[in-house]
This record gives sequence, C-alpha cells and structure tokens, in this order.
Amino acid sequence: MKEKNLEKIRHSLSHLLAQAVKEKFPKVKLGIGPVIENGFYYDFDFSSTEPLREGDLAELEDIMRKNIDKNLTFVGKTITENEAREIFSKEPYKLELIENLKKKDQSLMVYESGNFIDLCSGPHVDMSHQIDKESFYLERIAGAYWLGDEKNKMLTRIYGVAFADKNKLEEYKERKEEALKRDHRKLGKDLDLFCFSEIVGAGLPLFTPNGTMIKDILQKHIEEICRQYGFEKVSTPHLAKIDLYELSGHAKKFGDELFRVSSPAGHNFVLKPVQCPHHTQIYASKPRSYRDLPIRYMESEKQYRAEKTGEVGGLNRVYAITVEDGHTFCRPDQIKEEVTKMINIIKDFYTSLGLWEDHWVSLSVRDYDHPEKYIGEPADWDECEKVLEEISNDLKLEAKRCEGEAALYGPKLDFMFRDALGKEIQIPTVQLDFATPKKFNLIYTDKDGSEKNPIMIHRAILGSYERFMALIIEHFAGAFPTWLSPIQVTILPISDNFIDEALKVKDKLKSAGIRVDILSDGETLGKRLRQAKMKKVPYIVILGEKEIRENNLQIEKRDGQSRKMTTAELIDCILDDN
Amino acid sequence: MKEKNLEKIRHSLSHLLAQAVKEKFPKVKLGIGPVIENGFYYDFDFSSTEPLREGDLAELEDIMRKNIDKNLTFVGKTITENEAREIFSKEPYKLELIENLKKKDQSLMVYESGNFIDLCSGPHVDMSHQIDKESFYLERIAGAYWLGDEKNKMLTRIYGVAFADKNKLEEYKERKEEALKRDHRKLGKDLDLFCFSEIVGAGLPLFTPNGTMIKDILQKHIEEICRQYGFEKVSTPHLAKIDLYELSGHAKKFGDELFRVSSPAGHNFVLKPVQCPHHTQIYASKPRSYRDLPIRYMESEKQYRAEKTGEVGGLNRVYAITVEDGHTFCRPDQIKEEVTKMINIIKDFYTSLGLWEDHWVSLSVRDYDHPEKYIGEPADWDECEKVLEEISNDLKLEAKRCEGEAALYGPKLDFMFRDALGKEIQIPTVQLDFATPKKFNLIYTDKDGSEKNPIMIHRAILGSYERFMALIIEHFAGAFPTWLSPIQVTILPISDNFIDEALKVKDKLKSAGIRVDILSDGETLGKRLRQAKMKKVPYIVILGEKEIRENNLQIEKRDGQSRKMTTAELIDCILDDN
Repeated sequence: MKEKNLEKIRHSLSHLLAQAVKEKFPKVKLGIGPVIENGFYYDFDFSSTEPLREGDLAELEDIMRKNIDKNLTFVGKTITENEAREIFSKEPYKLELIENLKKKDQSLMVYESGNFIDLCSGPHVDMSHQIDKESFYLERIAGAYWLGDEKNKMLTRIYGVAFADKNKLEEYKERKEEALKRDHRKLGKDLDLFCFSEIVGAGLPLFTPNGTMIKDILQKHIEEICRQYGFEKVSTPHLAKIDLYELSGHAKKFGDELFRVSSPAGHNFVLKPVQCPHHTQIYASKPRSYRDLPIRYMESEKQYRAEKTGEVGGLNRVYAITVEDGHTFCRPDQIKEEVTKMINIIKDFYTSLGLWEDHWVSLSVRDYDHPEKYIGEPADWDECEKVLEEISNDLKLEAKRCEGEAALYGPKLDFMFRDALGKEIQIPTVQLDFATPKKFNLIYTDKDGSEKNPIMIHRAILGSYERFMALIIEHFAGAFPTWLSPIQVTILPISDNFIDEALKVKDKLKSAGIRVDILSDGETLGKRLRQAKMKKVPYIVILGEKEIRENNLQIEKRDGQSRKMTTAELIDCILDDN
Repeated sequence: MKEKNLEKIRHSLSHLLAQAVKEKFPKVKLGIGPVIENGFYYDFDFSSTEPLREGDLAELEDIMRKNIDKNLTFVGKTITENEAREIFSKEPYKLELIENLKKKDQSLMVYESGNFIDLCSGPHVDMSHQIDKESFYLERIAGAYWLGDEKNKMLTRIYGVAFADKNKLEEYKERKEEALKRDHRKLGKDLDLFCFSEIVGAGLPLFTPNGTMIKDILQKHIEEICRQYGFEKVSTPHLAKIDLYELSGHAKKFGDELFRVSSPAGHNFVLKPVQCPHHTQIYASKPRSYRDLPIRYMESEKQYRAEKTGEVGGLNRVYAITVEDGHTFCRPDQIKEEVTKMINIIKDFYTSLGLWEDHWVSLSVRDYDHPEKYIGEPADWDECEKVLEEISNDLKLEAKRCEGEAALYGPKLDFMFRDALGKEIQIPTVQLDFATPKKFNLIYTDKDGSEKNPIMIHRAILGSYERFMALIIEHFAGAFPTWLSPIQVTILPISDNFIDEALKVKDKLKSAGIRVDILSDGETLGKRLRQAKMKKVPYIVILGEKEIRENNLQIEKRDGQSRKMTTAELIDCILDDN
C-alpha cells in the first residue's frame, strides 16, 4: 500500500517536472516520464529551443515546488483518438505514442494538472499537497535514445530522486554517500588493489601486489579450514572439449555464454564455465572402493562466462571468475556427515569475517511445475530433498523452503548473510547431486562387490574471489581486519636520518611474519601520515630520536587510538588481532 | 673422428640389414637406409612377398652376423645413369631415387658388399670385420610412408640400434631401461600424480591431490625465495585483446600458435602465450617515480600454445603450461644489482634440489647476420650485451658466448644443468629488455623531473610447473626429497586393532606440519608395505602391540634402512630432512 503511494508521488513528480520544463522552455517537445527505482525521469527534445544545462535543474525544482504549493489536482480521463491528436498536435513524440497505442487497439487516457496535460494512464496523487516538497530533487541530465532504440533520435533525460518524506530522502542520500565511499572500484584504486588496461580489455581485472596478497590470504585461509575437514586440492585445465559439457548438461545451460577456443590448425575447445565435470574425471581416473570414500576435492581456478560486452565492470561482472570450488564423492550413508562438514566450513569461514551471526538458510527445492528445467530422476530428487530437510531439522538450521531455487542437478541449502550496508549476500551453498555421477558413469565397488554410483555433493564457501573481494572491500570500507590487510604496518621515520632504525624494526616485524613497509619518499611526515591513513593500514609506526632513545614506538592505530609500545609488544598486538 | 667411425659402422649395418632381408625375402623391394641417433633403419616394401613379423628379426640378425664373419669389403664406385637403371631395374624405389638425383644433376654412386649392391654415396667401413658383431641389434618394426610423404605407399621400416662396441651397447641398454623406469608418464600413474581424460581432451593434464601438492610445494618454495629478493606476486587474466600482443611483437612471433577465443555474441580475445605484456600494464596503471624502482612482479599462471595435435603427450607437450614468471622494472644504475639478485634466486633454488654443482652459463647474444629476427634498437642491444658480459665477469660465471641464442627483445644469461641421466636442462634465464618498455611507453619520473623508460628484466627459475615436474619425476625417479614428497609418512597398523593408536600418531605428526596418511584397507601387512614402497614414501611406520607398549615406532626408510624411534624423534628426523 505504502509502495503504491510512493509510486503515485514519483509519477506525479515526473508530470510536475515536464510542466516546469514547459514553463521555462515552451518550445521543448515531450517524450515519456516513468517511475524508476528511487525516483523518476522524463525525456525531452531540446533541439528546437535553447539547450538545457545542469545549472537549470535548481530553477526547475523551484518551479515544481511552486506548482506543488498551488495544490494542483490530478484528473484523469479517457479520450478519443481525434481528441488526442488535437491535444498533442504539436508534440511529435506523443503523436507517435498515440499511433502505437491505437495499433495495439488500446484506449487513450490523459491526466491534467493545472495548465499541464499528458498522455498517461496514471496512477497519480489526487492533489499536489500530498507530495512533501522537501522529499525530492533533480539529480542529473543524461542522453537517451527515444524509446531506447539507438536508431532513434537522442533526447535529453532528466533524472529525479523522490521518497515519501524528507527523512526517507535523507536516509537515501546517506546510504548513497556511504556506498559511494565504499564502492569497490573507488577503493580498489585508492588502496591499489587492482587495475584495468584498455589494451588488455574491459572485464579483465589485473590484480596488483596488494590485491593479489588479499586473494592469496583468503585462499590460504579457506584451504586450511577445508583441509581440516579432509578436502584435498586438485588442479585441472581451463580448456576442455565441448563433449564434456554436452554430457554434463552445462553446454545446454550456458549456451552462448560459453567461450569457444580455436586455432588455425583446427583446435576446438571451450573455456570451462564450471569445475564439476573436470573433478568427475579425476574421480574416474582409477578404480574406487567403498573404503576410499568419501573423496573430497577442492580447487580455486578461473571459470569463464562470455558476459555481455556492455555489462562488464568492476570486479562483479568480469569474463573470468576465480572460483573456490569443492566436491565430495560419497556413499549414501555418508551424506549427512559430509553435508554437516560443509556447513561447519561455512560457519568457520564466515565467523572469521564476523558475518555468521546474522544469517538465514534456504532449503532450495525444485519448481514442481517445471520438471523440464532439471536433470536426473524424480525419485532421486525426492530422496535428496528429504535428506536435506532432515539435516536442516537435525542441525536446527530452520531452513526456509524455497521452491524453484534448486540447482540444475539437485536441491541445495543456501546461506544468506548481510553486509555492513544491509545488502543481502547469497554465496555459500551445499548441493546434493545424484545425477552427475550417473551421467559420467562414476562408480565404486561396494562391500558386497557390486558396482554403485557415488553421490556428488557440491559446495561453495566464498564463491569467486573477484566478487568476494568486491563484497569485503565494500563491507569493511577498505579497512580490512589485520589478518587480511595486505600491509599490516607502515613505518614512518620522522626524517631520512632514521631510515636505518626503521629497517631494523621492519626486519624484526618481518621475521614474525608481519607484512610491513616503510614510507620515506622525501615527503613531509604529515603528508606521509595522510598517505598511510588513506591506505587504511591497521598500524602506523612513527619513528624519531625520542622513540629510538626510549626504545618505545609511537603507534597510530587505524581506529584513531595512539599509544606507545615496544617492538615486541607491537608484534604481540598484531598477532592477537589475527 | 670417433663419431665419424660410428656413423660408418651404422651405415654399413643398414646395408647388411638390407642384404639379410634380401636373402630371406628375395622378392622384397628396397627403400632407403640412413643412419639415425643410436643406430640406423632400412625401409622395405614387403607387398609382393610374405609379410615380415617381429619374430623374424632374430633370424635377420643371425644372417647379418654370418655376413660380418665373411669379412665383406665395402667398395664404392660412381656409375652412369644407364648402368644404374640396369643394376636396379627390378627396384622401383631405387629407380625413383635415380630419377630424382639426375633431375638435380647429381652423380650416381653405388656401394657393393659381397653379393649386395646399393645406390649409396657412403661412407662405409672398409670391411665388415671392423664391426663388432655384438655391438648391434634389430629393435623393432614400424610403418613409414615412402620418403615420409603420406600420399606415398606405406613401407615397412626395420629399426636397428648400434654402437662402437658391446660395452657401449650395454651402456645404452641400461640408460634406456633406466629412462623407461623413470619415465614421468609411467611414474605419474604409479605415484598417482596426474591423469588424462579422453572427454576433457589430449594435452590437458588433470593434477590429482598428490601432483597438486608437489606443484604447490614448489610454488610456495620459489615464492618464498623470491620474496626475500623483493618480488611481489601479481595476478593477471588469461585473456587479452590481440592488440596487446601486436604491440609487444608476440602476435607475429607465435602466429598460428595463438589460441583464439570467441563467442557467438562477438567477443574476440586470445589466450595469453606469455605473461610479460600483462605485467607492463600493472606497471603502467599509475605514475612511477625513480624512488619507486625497482618494481618486481612474479606470477605463476597458465600460458597457452596451440601445439600440434599429434605432438601433445605427457607433461612435456601440453596446451597450457603454468609458468613461474618474473619481471623487474628498474633504472639503468640498478641493472647489475637486479641481475645479481636473479642469479642468486636461481642459485638458491637449484641448490635446494642438489642441481647447482654441475652447471654452465651461456651468454646468449644476437645472430649478428640476421638483425630482422629481433625487436629494439641496435644501440640498446650493444649496451645490453656489454652489461651482461660485465656481470658475467664480475660474478665469475665464466659464461660461454653463444651467438643467435638471444630472446626476441634482448640478450640473456642462460643456466644449464644436468639431470640424473646426464640429460641437459636449460631452464633458468635472466634477460635484459630495453625494447618492451619503450613499445608500451612505460615511464618513470627521474630525480631531475624528466620522463624515462625503465629497463625490463625477465627471469625464469623453474620455467613451467608441468615440464619441471616431468623433469624432477625423472631426475628423482619418483623418490622426491622429503620436503617435496606429497606424502612424507605412511603409517601401517599391523591390524585393525591398532587403528586408534595410528590415528594418535598421525595427529601428532600432522600438528608438526608433516604430511601423513594411514594405510589400513584390510589388506595384509606385506601387501600394504609393498604398496607404500611403490609410492616411494620416505618414511613408513609400522605399528603393532610391541611398538605401542615400548612407545617406539618401527620405521622403514625409503633407502632400505630400518630403525626404531619415538614419535618425537621421527618428527625431528623429518624436519631435519627438509
């Protein structure tokens, strides 16, 4: 109900905007003005009048507010084609819309507010006093093709932001400002984590030493956790014959998103879109007995998707994602223990990032109305869904049953978290798969000598390093926990006279496994301090004569605290953080 | 001189082989019979006589030895075309050769030995007594197209092995047997290090947990060494626009060996054949000052070459090699220190594998007659070659100057080692490059504010992990040093009663960072001991009642030694090995 009201407000503001533009630029031609996320826009053709400038927006806002004060009524009525052609005789874009609507045999409606009339089927507020004058602003101007078709003329679009009241608008502004500050593309540059190169290509990030360090720390961390639960690392190629994915079903699933690899000599491969089929081939490389199971493989390798050219950007949409992937092959009597292990890995990992507390679990099952979307036998699906439901109950996960959210090959448990801005994160997942081992004819010899198919369990913990890095950059606003910080300590000698002492401190910290650098590039101490703070280094050490004489370092912590401690104390402090 | 004699012996044996075949199969038609590495072959057309079988080879050897005993003389003479056509009137292949020789206006020569005559320009031994009867054997039969052209008829080729004397032949046989035992494809399977899958494709190895462990240990080891010398790890994509390689010169260099990547939506990339251009783009991602240099990047990532389909096999010829690559960008006054650092890395790494002692160094310079093979300015080349020569002298490398062995972009120092079978290894290299930074317009601001191009130094230590693994598997015959062994300890409980105790020992070893497994699959102790020995595990622990009671483990070392020690002593022993 509230949402519906907000939509009416936004839509009415778009009319008030067009009305204001018409008042200031009477010769302007009107396009269309719909509601969008967070506000509205309206498209105009300024070609037969003076051009619009960013500076005009404030004046247009004033006109809109003045009209709101008049408490205009919004009145809608249905009209004939002739009436419409008469009303909009000087508006070529509206005439085109009338033509199109009549072709589809649709009725024509207009809304009138004061001296302004627009071709529109509503809904609107009843009168302009229902709009809080302080709840909106005009945000920016952009070019946009008429009806979104690049063969059409480029019009001028004015974007507006609007909420139900002033408070809601302020909240939005704060969220936006915070999101901008945390934007991983901005912080990625400030913290020198990754870069792009025009000659390499869009959608292909290059990780600098700092970014690579974070990726490596995450990988080491997750591999250590997984090894404790019996996972072994494997390493498989990025290429395969398409036959592999035709058998697995991924060729059909990914279709045109598969990158094709060829050579003039006639090679013909695809770049792998997923890891699973390769892992089945390691399982299949030698005979397996019931005693060998479970077998658990993990791998952090690149997977490829031919994302649409216009959609790549930052670390969230790239052509290759480095996926931390894991698969367990087990007997039916081992499913519960293996799924529990995977859930424990998810818990360990997200606890270490402080994200575990606020989570919920989805038991993602089939869309029962569309069995054709899945591979495998219905009986196996029934069994898999039952097993996951039991595990959810036993482990008191309180999983919410979500129909239609299952994977291609089986049902799954999905874990949802929230980042610092309240955005939902859906990454970790545990998926049961009876189908793939059958497709690839994977077998093990059971106790009684019979040959059986193992069950395959897919698990994801952090998903892809690229997207996960974007997420944690924004979640921590670049101020990573000490154990994840590429540089944990920056030493600032007060002047070049103290570089030798700085090197000694650096060596001591380095021997303790701490990542440390020295900033002594000839700039003033103040400037270097600001540089180090911009890099969000957890500990900054300031080193001058007094500190050396007293054998006590001056420490500036990232949280603003400043204190004195010995090198040994600093080492303890950092290792405690980890 | 000796080599020349051996060639005469081998060539004469090829005639003796043809003579023997003619004696046993008078209707056989003769092809050609040249000298090859380790011996000789002769091609025959058996289509108008009964077919040759492997079992016939022994009889043919007997006939050859009988003819050697006759002390036949080998007499050569030049003949006319008519004489030649007369002599070989029933030998269609020889007639074709005569035709070809005359077309090229070459003289015709025959060699006669006993009742055998062949179209041949020699040289041969003077008489068959100069051949040691026990110094050769016929090795195998194979199919071969006449003159190597697949449009021609398939002939039957008999391969022979021959050396100067019996001892030399025995040495060859031993080397061959040893090489077969050490073959990385065989050991890769025995030790379960990697596998192939038909549906993934040839030339695309999949590394199992053991193989991945060795790769990871090597990578960690080399990265630790390189970090000590200031290298920082970066991570770059496998894809790039071809523009990147057109600018670098690699597109021209690799040509059809570049894999092309495309999608139905029109994406167009290549798979990277080298790392260097990507690293230049990280350098170029922000302004650099003279104080920032040297900047040292390292990366272990896959590089792609569209090797010929028929040539892929094992780990030596694959479509993707994971190259451990490193590049330093520095000022001219830093070259010497940086090259010295790289040489120290090479020394540290190869010393840890026991390979440093027996090495020599090549100063690989331009082919001065073919400057078109290289990129960059001649003056820069002169300077680079001079610098490397100075470094070689200063460090007493005693580098041998090898013309024509330089890289595309500059001269280099190449390090050569020998593996356990005496095979030369040419992997590590340090290469100076003035050209690439200029091509990519890489700059730094010098002390005086002027903009300059840095110098790029390329270095390889172990080359690619795939080829290096093949090499060390064969070098160590699978018995890797303890620090490189994927499994360092295997525990064999005498019976299932001692599994709990075995698990306790396993946990203690694991806590000390030792890689350990338990073999308790219901087989007899003897069979399990053989299994563990086949895996070449450095330490095998046998655990029964006595060992538990006395708190003393029974250790079987890989070298055959067997002794008793406590768990703590075993841990010390293994850590000492590392």
